[in-house]
Amino acid sequence: MDLERKHVQTKKKIIVLGGDGFCGWPTSLHLSNMGHDVVIIDNLSRRNIDNELEAESLTPIQPMGTRLKVWEEVAGKKIDFINLDIAEEYDDLLKTLHTEKPDVIVHFAEQRSAPYSMKSPKHKRYTVNNNINTTHNVLCAIAESGLDIHLVHLGTMGVYGYGTAGMKIPEGYLDIEVKTETGERIEQQILYPTNPGSIYHMTKTQDQLLFHYYNKNDGLRITDLHQGIVWGTNTEETKLDERLINRFDYDGDYGTVLNRFLMQAAVGYPITVHGTGGQTRAFIHIQDTVRCIELAIENPPQIEERVMIFNQMTETHRVNDLAKLVSELSGGEIAYVSNPRKEAPENDLHVKNDLFLSKGLNPTTLEAGLLQEVTEVAQKYAYRADFSKIPAKSTWTKEQQPGIPEGEE
Amino acid sequence: MDLERKHVQTKKKIIVLGGDGFCGWPTSLHLSNMGHDVVIIDNLSRRNIDNELEAESLTPIQPMGTRLKVWEEVAGKKIDFINLDIAEEYDDLLKTLHTEKPDVIVHFAEQRSAPYSMKSPKHKRYTVNNNINTTHNVLCAIAESGLDIHLVHLGTMGVYGYGTAGMKIPEGYLDIEVKTETGERIEQQILYPTNPGSIYHMTKTQDQLLFHYYNKNDGLRITDLHQGIVWGTNTEETKLDERLINRFDYDGDYGTVLNRFLMQAAVGYPITVHGTGGQTRAFIHIQDTVRCIELAIENPPQIEERVMIFNQMTETHRVNDLAKLVSELSGGEIAYVSNPRKEAPENDLHVKNDLFLSKGLNPTTLEAGLLQEVTEVAQKYAYRADFSKIPAKSTWTKEQQPGIPEGEE
Ligand SMILES: NC(=O)c1ccc[n+]([C@@H]2O[C@H](COP(=O)([O-])OP(=O)(O)OC[C@H]3O[C@@H](n4cnc5c(N)ncnc54)[C@H](O)[C@@H]3O)[C@@H](O)[C@H]2O)c1
Ligand SMILES: NC(=O)c1ccc[n+]([C@@H]2O[C@H](COP(=O)([O-])OP(=O)(O)OC[C@H]3O[C@@H](n4cnc5c(N)ncnc54)[C@H](O)[C@@H]3O)[C@@H](O)[C@H]2O)c1
Repeated sequence: MDLERKHVQTKKKIIVLGGDGFCGWPTSLHLSNMGHDVVIIDNLSRRNIDNELEAESLTPIQPMGTRLKVWEEVAGKKIDFINLDIAEEYDDLLKTLHTEKPDVIVHFAEQRSAPYSMKSPKHKRYTVNNNINTTHNVLCAIAESGLDIHLVHLGTMGVYGYGTAGMKIPEGYLDIEVKTETGERIEQQILYPTNPGSIYHMTKTQDQLLFHYYNKNDGLRITDLHQGIVWGTNTEETKLDERLINRFDYDGDYGTVLNRFLMQAAVGYPITVHGTGGQTRAFIHIQDTVRCIELAIENPPQIEERVMIFNQMTETHRVNDLAKLVSELSGGEIAYVSNPRKEAPENDLHVKNDLFLSKGLNPTTLEAGLLQEVTEVAQKYAYRADFSKIPAKSTWTKEQQPGIPEGEE
Repeated sequence: MDLERKHVQTKKKIIVLGGDGFCGWPTSLHLSNMGHDVVIIDNLSRRNIDNELEAESLTPIQPMGTRLKVWEEVAGKKIDFINLDIAEEYDDLLKTLHTEKPDVIVHFAEQRSAPYSMKSPKHKRYTVNNNINTTHNVLCAIAESGLDIHLVHLGTMGVYGYGTAGMKIPEGYLDIEVKTETGERIEQQILYPTNPGSIYHMTKTQDQLLFHYYNKNDGLRITDLHQGIVWGTNTEETKLDERLINRFDYDGDYGTVLNRFLMQAAVGYPITVHGTGGQTRAFIHIQDTVRCIELAIENPPQIEERVMIFNQMTETHRVNDLAKLVSELSGGEIAYVSNPRKEAPENDLHVKNDLFLSKGLNPTTLEAGLLQEVTEVAQKYAYRADFSKIPAKSTWTKEQQPGIPEGEE
C-alpha cells in the first residue's frame, strides 16, 4: 500500500506526550504524515506495566527505535523521541519546551486503565500521583515557559458519569437555573457535574479543575477531548509496514470492551459480558481519534477563551448488543460473568458530538465493515494470545467478584 | 488560670493529621481536654517552610516534645506524636491505622497558604503534590484498613469562589434545575460548582472529588468543613501555659488578613490593604474552629450517607471595613498597595452556616472584644517581629506587582 502524503497549510511543531501508547503512536504518525514536525515524549511506563502484568499487546509492537527508523524509511519523515517521566522530571520537561518551542502539545500521557487503577492501594496511588502530577507539570511548564502553546488533552466520556435523567450529555458545559434569595431564577452555564466510576476516571475530573484554573489565571489555551472507548487497531499510517503496527490490548486490565469481544471471538474464547451487559457506552474508531486530534489542532480556542471541550465519540451502544453483534459475526459464544465494577446494571446514554461534526469529522461507524478488519488482525496474531490474561481480575471493592467466566480460574 | 476539665460521654481515639499547625495544635489540646484519646501525626513541614522563608511565628512556639510534656504536666493527659509524611509514607500511615484503630481522623495536613502556592513552579508543584497525595493516601488507607473511621477534613470557603450572583452560598450542595430534551425541567442537587482563586484553593476543589469518590465507592464516612479565614491565636487550652502557645503567622505568605492587620497595628506598621479592599471574606475565631471540630466529631454522617459539608464560618466582612476597624481601635494608618492576587476588586459574600448553629455553635464574633486580646498578644511579642517579612511578595502572574507599601522594598 502506498502512503497518501498530506500537506497542511501551516506546519506546526507538535509534542506528543504519551506518543508510544495506543492512541499516541498512530496520532504521532498521522500528524507527521500531515506535514507537521512531531516530537514524542514517553517514559515507556505502559510497556513496563505489561512487564508487571505479565501481559503483552496481541500485535507485535516494536521498540520505539525501530518504529521511528521504519517511519523514516517509509515516509521519509523524522520524528524525535525523548524518554522522560513527565510526572517526575519537571526541569527536563521545561527545558524541552524552551528548546523545541512547540505550537501544540497533545497530552495522552496518563495511566488510562480503570481496572488497573482499582487493583490495590499501590495502583490507586500510582494512578492519582502519575496522572495529576503529569497534567499539572505540563500546565505549570507551559505557563512558566511564557510560550503560546495550545494544549490538547485526552479526557474521557467517563467524567460525566452514566445515567443522565433523559438529558443529552452536552459538550463539557451544562446550562442550569438557580434560584436567588428573592426567588428570582438565574441562568448559568457550569462545568458538567462529574460522577466518575473509578479512580482513573476520578483523576480526569481532577484534571478538568487544573485546566479551568490555568486557563483562568494564566490564560492558557486548552482543548479537552472527552473521548469514548476507542476500538480498532490500525490507521492508514500504521498499516504501511508491519513494524509500525499499533498496540492491541486484550488483557483483563487494558483490554477495552469492543476490541476485547472481537479478540475473544477471533481466538475462540467466550465473549465475556460483565453483569447484564445493560451498560451503554460511547465509542470511536482509532482512525477517527487521530482525525479528531487533527481537527482539534486546526481549531484552537482563542486567547481569553475558556477551556474548549469536545465530546470525541461517534456512536453509543449497549454492551450486550455489541456482544450479540460480535457473536453473530463470528459464531462465538457469550458468557455472562459477574461485574467487577461498582456501577448501575443498566444505563441510557445520549451524547452530543456536534462540535467535531461541524469541524468536518466524517464518522467511521461499526457498520463500516471495520469490525471484520479488527477480527482479521486478531486472528492473524491469535498465536500470541495468552488466554489466562483475558479475565478481569481487578474488582472495585473487596466484596466483589472478578469477571471470570465459569470454568476459568 | 485553671483548666476547666470536660468530659465527653463516649471517649474516642482520634488521630489529628497536621496537629503541629495553627488549627491542629489547639484542636488536639481541646479534644484531649474533652477526654478523647489523641494522637498527632505531622511531618513538621510547616516549621521547615518557616526555615525556607526565613520567617517565624510571632509567638514563640515550642518544639513538639516540649509542647506535649507541658500538656501532660498541666492537664495530666498524654498525647502521642508520630513524625510521618502522609504524602510519602503510605505504608507507615496504614500501619498506624491498624495499631491505633482510630474512631476519627481529623485532617489538617495540607500546605495551606495561597501566596506560598503561587510563588514559583516549585511551590505550585509542591502544593499540588503534597495536598492531593496526602488526602488520597488518607482515604486509600482508611478504605484498605477496613476500619469504620470517620474522616473530618478541613476545606476552605475559597472552593466556592467569590461572587455568587445574589445567592446565599449553601453548605456544599446547590439546588439546580436542568431542562431535558423534551423541555421538561428536572430538579437536582449537585456539588457546588467551584471557582478557586489560587493553586492552593484548587487543590481543595480536587480533594472534594476524592471525597465524593471514596464515599460512593467504599462507603467512607466523611465530613468536609469549608472553613473561613481563622483569626485569633489562643484558645482556652493554649492559654494555660506560655509553652503551649499557638502559632501566629504574620509574614507575607502565611499571615492571613485580620490577624495580619492586628499585628501590623500592634507593632506600628502600616495596615496594608491589597487593592481597594473591596473583597468580602468569611471569618471564624480559632476558639470556634476547635469547637466546630468537636461538633463535627459528635455529629458524624451515617453509613451510606453522602459527604457531609458544613460551612465553618461565623461572619463575613469587607477587607476595607476590617482595616478601618483595626485602624480606629489602634490609631494605625492604612496603606493601599497593589493586589498581588488575580481576583475581582470587589465582591459580595452571603454564606449559610445553619448546620453548625443547629448543632449548638455559639459564635465568637469580632464584637466580642477578642480583637483586643489578639492585639495584646501581638504587642507582647512585637520584639520578635521582622518587618521585612510582612509584605506580600508572591504574585499570581508574572505581570503583577507584589503588595508592598510605598517606601518598602
Ligand atoms: N484507549 C481508550 O479507549 C481511551 C478512551 C478514552 C480516553 N483515553 C485517553 O487517551 C489517552 C491515551 O490512551 P491510550 O489508550 O493511548 O493509553 P496508553 O496507556 O496506551 O498510552 C499512554 C502513554 O503515556 C505514557 N505515559 C504515562 N505516564 C507517563 C509519564 N508520567 N511520563 C511519560 N509518559 C507517560 C505511557 O508510557 C503510554 O505510552 C489517555 O489519557 C486515556 O485516558 C483512552
Ligand atoms: N488558617 C486558616 O485561616 C485556614 C482557613 C481555612 C482553611 N484552613 C485549613 O485548615 C487546615 C489547617 O490550617 P493551618 O492554618 O493550621 O495550617 P498549618 O500550615 O499551620 O498546619 C498544617 C500542618 O500540617 C502539616 N503537614 C502538611 N503537610 C503534611 C504532610 N505531607 N505530612 C504530615 N504533615 C503535614 C504541617 O507541618 C502543619 O503542621 C489546612 O488544611 C487549611 O487549608 C485554614
